Amino acid sequence: MQKYNNLAIVGSTGLVGRELFRLIKQGPLPFSSLRCFASGQNLTEEQETEILKESSFKGIDLAFFCLNSELTKKFVPLARKEKTLVIDLSSTFRMESDVPLIIPEINPEAIATHKGIIASPNCVTTLMLLPLAPLHAEFGLKRIIASTYQAASGGGKALLAQLKEESQAFLKDENLKTEYGFNLFLHDSPIGPDLYSEEEVKMLKESHKILGDSSFKVSATCVRVPVMRAHSIAINAEFKKSICLIKAASLIKKAKGVSFLENAFPTPMMAMGKDDIFVGRLRQDCSHDKAIEMWIVGDQLLKGAALNAYQIAQMLLKK
Amino acid sequence: MQKYNNLAIVGSTGLVGRELFRLIKQGPLPFSSLRCFASGQNLTEEQETEILKESSFKGIDLAFFCLNSELTKKFVPLARKEKTLVIDLSSTFRMESDVPLIIPEINPEAIATHKGIIASPNCVTTLMLLPLAPLHAEFGLKRIIASTYQAASGGGKALLAQLKEESQAFLKDENLKTEYGFNLFLHDSPIGPDLYSEEEVKMLKESHKILGDSSFKVSATCVRVPVMRAHSIAINAEFKKSICLIKAASLIKKAKGVSFLENAFPTPMMAMGKDDIFVGRLRQDCSHDKAIEMWIVGDQLLKGAALNAYQIAQMLLKK
Repeated sequence: MQKYNNLAIVGSTGLVGRELFRLIKQGPLPFSSLRCFASGQNLTEEQETEILKESSFKGIDLAFFCLNSELTKKFVPLARKEKTLVIDLSSTFRMESDVPLIIPEINPEAIATHKGIIASPNCVTTLMLLPLAPLHAEFGLKRIIASTYQAASGGGKALLAQLKEESQAFLKDENLKTEYGFNLFLHDSPIGPDLYSEEEVKMLKESHKILGDSSFKVSATCVRVPVMRAHSIAINAEFKKSICLIKAASLIKKAKGVSFLENAFPTPMMAMGKDDIFVGRLRQDCSHDKAIEMWIVGDQLLKGAALNAYQIAQMLLKK
Repeated sequence: MQKYNNLAIVGSTGLVGRELFRLIKQGPLPFSSLRCFASGQNLTEEQETEILKESSFKGIDLAFFCLNSELTKKFVPLARKEKTLVIDLSSTFRMESDVPLIIPEINPEAIATHKGIIASPNCVTTLMLLPLAPLHAEFGLKRIIASTYQAASGGGKALLAQLKEESQAFLKDENLKTEYGFNLFLHDSPIGPDLYSEEEVKMLKESHKILGDSSFKVSATCVRVPVMRAHSIAINAEFKKSICLIKAASLIKKAKGVSFLENAFPTPMMAMGKDDIFVGRLRQDCSHDKAIEMWIVGDQLLKGAALNAYQIAQMLLKK
């Protein structure tokens, strides 16, 4: 296939759907037509949006799905009935054995096994693995301890609006008790029996699937910070082999999709709107000779979501 | 000594100085007179503040010092010449061998060795050690990995003002690139040759001194988040002995100065203005059987600074 005929964005008016719309309109991916579907409430000015229906997928060869889990479960099978290829950005199918979970820079080969659905990973997992995958290949990951500083965009338009409104209100009355404005809170995903949140468990399970190796561990703490749309992660990574900091730096420098700032501290404000993710503050862990510390920041809506899905569509065309 | 005659706050108009003023005025510490000194620029309405002079310490029996390092080095020796007992909140003397570094709940006995100067520790170090000290006594700390989420108040009035101004400006124009408003940045302390910041190194060195044990390691990443005045820390703590989560929980529950929320997530908004610090999200580290994860939050201006110094003054009186 040299070109897509009919592309679709399903859930096109959400934060991620809108970034996908912009990427498809402006990017190099060749296609004849693009249709935008949404579940109804949130029509936008830029897009001609159609209400998502059971019959929406007729003639669509590739659809990007940016829906919640409930709608995903309902509409993906309808798309597959029409032989529409699905790139799903939700977590619904990520761990299913016949659904490849793809970061194009890391495991492009895994895409060959797809049976019509390809999943794009959790945003912080993608940001974390971009610099860690080449280090894993060289030194063998043993254990990751990750503390996240996640932005509002990951919770969609409602959370972004809440952050802005509460910040505005707090600046007018500093006695106000806000949930999110000038405050931190636990990433809003359910807590499991081991007391880790779903988001924290994704960072373990999706990493295993993407790297094709479950011999390492990930213990994460996922926190929302009052930042608009770039996620940050403080990473402590321990390896099986002795790690050389100079070699690690050179591997991260060569990693695709990564801008390496070495000793500097990349900020969310710097990463907003950028395709590349940023890695900084790489240092030998003073508490363990086979571990390193690093600081990762990336635009959650781009490489953390829309851009990764877009790149998967590019890869499929090259096959 | 049953009562202080003349107390002084040196640097009384800063954020910490003002909290100390409030504590002394409202608290149980018996004293005859309180004098407030500041270096000049920032007089407040509540306090009758005098300009700090070389002769300020005549007749003062105890002075709380909340000055920057330069002024601390100049004025503490002048206070000592007048035999004024000094409780210093800066980092200037903390690591000197004849200066006890005191968290009253943890190492009260160390105060006996003082020679006129007692130091109050770094704010995040104090918050981190309150729940960890009893666990260290039981299981023996081996290695701490800490990621901090530090508030503006730790950088003083100027940083608080910057956060408010930049947040206000960003809410009016979302294309603005701010340094602190809706952004994170590296804790503003110099980076050493091992690539750790001074603040990160304090968490190691001051912990060793306070616990009287340098057999454990601390690797920290200190980050400023857009929060007003409570610091948070994601802690991964590995112990020498096998750790029992139920026993750990019961030790933290009993720790003085700590409110334990177990599986909940205490927030900075919750901790603001509270004397107690909060510990939550205690869980077995899924990546290491002798390690646990926890989330600590505390008011940086209270237990992180003014309240700890105030408690040291209470202890001295009881002796």
